[in-house]
Amino acid sequence: MTIIQFIHTHLNIGLNSHAELPFKITEQTFAAGQIITACGQREKNAYFLKSGIVQISMLYNGDERILDFIFENNFFGAYTSLLTNLPSDTQLTTLAKTEVEVIDYRDLQNAYQHSLLANQLGRYVTERLFINYSSRQKDLLTKTAEQRYLELFEKRPDIISVIPVNKIAKYLGIHPESLSRIRKSIIF
Amino acid sequence: MTIIQFIHTHLNIGLNSHAELPFKITEQTFAAGQIITACGQREKNAYFLKSGIVQISMLYNGDERILDFIFENNFFGAYTSLLTNLPSDTQLTTLAKTEVEVIDYRDLQNAYQHSLLANQLGRYVTERLFINYSSRQKDLLTKTAEQRYLELFEKRPDIISVIPVNKIAKYLGIHPESLSRIRKSIIF
Repeated sequence: MTIIQFIHTHLNIGLNSHAELPFKITEQTFAAGQIITACGQREKNAYFLKSGIVQISMLYNGDERILDFIFENNFFGAYTSLLTNLPSDTQLTTLAKTEVEVIDYRDLQNAYQHSLLANQLGRYVTERLFINYSSRQKDLLTKTAEQRYLELFEKRPDIISVIPVNKIAKYLGIHPESLSRIRKSIIF
Repeated sequence: MTIIQFIHTHLNIGLNSHAELPFKITEQTFAAGQIITACGQREKNAYFLKSGIVQISMLYNGDERILDFIFENNFFGAYTSLLTNLPSDTQLTTLAKTEVEVIDYRDLQNAYQHSLLANQLGRYVTERLFINYSSRQKDLLTKTAEQRYLELFEKRPDIISVIPVNKIAKYLGIHPESLSRIRKSIIF
């Protein structure tokens, strides 16, 4: 999917070409294991994932924690850094060969001044991000690691099937050994 | 502050009266301890808090968890329910006498179809919510309860000064006894 197809699917607005968008789009390809945005860097772009997988992570006392895995047909970025213009506390790393469409944020901010479509898109994407993060926060506050792991099977089979176990542990916020115990205790 | 003043402060757009807004606003007052939106109810409104305090909470296995405290000059609501039209898993309760401005969501959704201002406002408010929830999620994944309690002093002195300790414990996701131990171990 492309940004134009995303707008058609989710906002029900048909556009024929990039020229009809209120901002410019460039394309970029990353190999697996490349850093798109590093911790400490100011995020300058919003990205749309056409293919591949991206990990959003942060370090705390030398420990890696994974905030999210991004799969194709989704927008992503070091979003707090983008919105606040502060150095990013998260890092974006590709976990596979990844193709993205890139929107320069200054260009998007200009479009936000006058373009209905740019604001509809920005609002829609942020609403979806909010729903995801809010759901995750509720889970972290109310559920055990075992419950959260079991629910991943239902909610995010994409994560279970392609992401290594040690990274799933970092996403659940538990030690890999604890996840191994949980996995062994589950009989399917 | 009112919604019109919020728009002037944050979007730098001056409006003279409610009639210039792309949606209708009504006003409502709640006594302390009233439920604005109950668990299981579908959220129909977005609220702007003119004065008072609102708690956003959820139940899990009979235990209350507090997701957020809303203070004046902020938008709030059972936002996931509003966006998804599913029954709310959160409850909104006033902790003091509370005055709100109310936007009917169907009216807002109509405005989203054609109004630049409605979309700019919706995008801005959702971006701010996202920044808050994302920061909270990072804290829950990386920091101990003691660190999170200490940081509340810096980041949210409003919470520390007016919210009872047992509710702060539910916000931090820990038992009140654990919070008491943490408080006793801190020498200021």
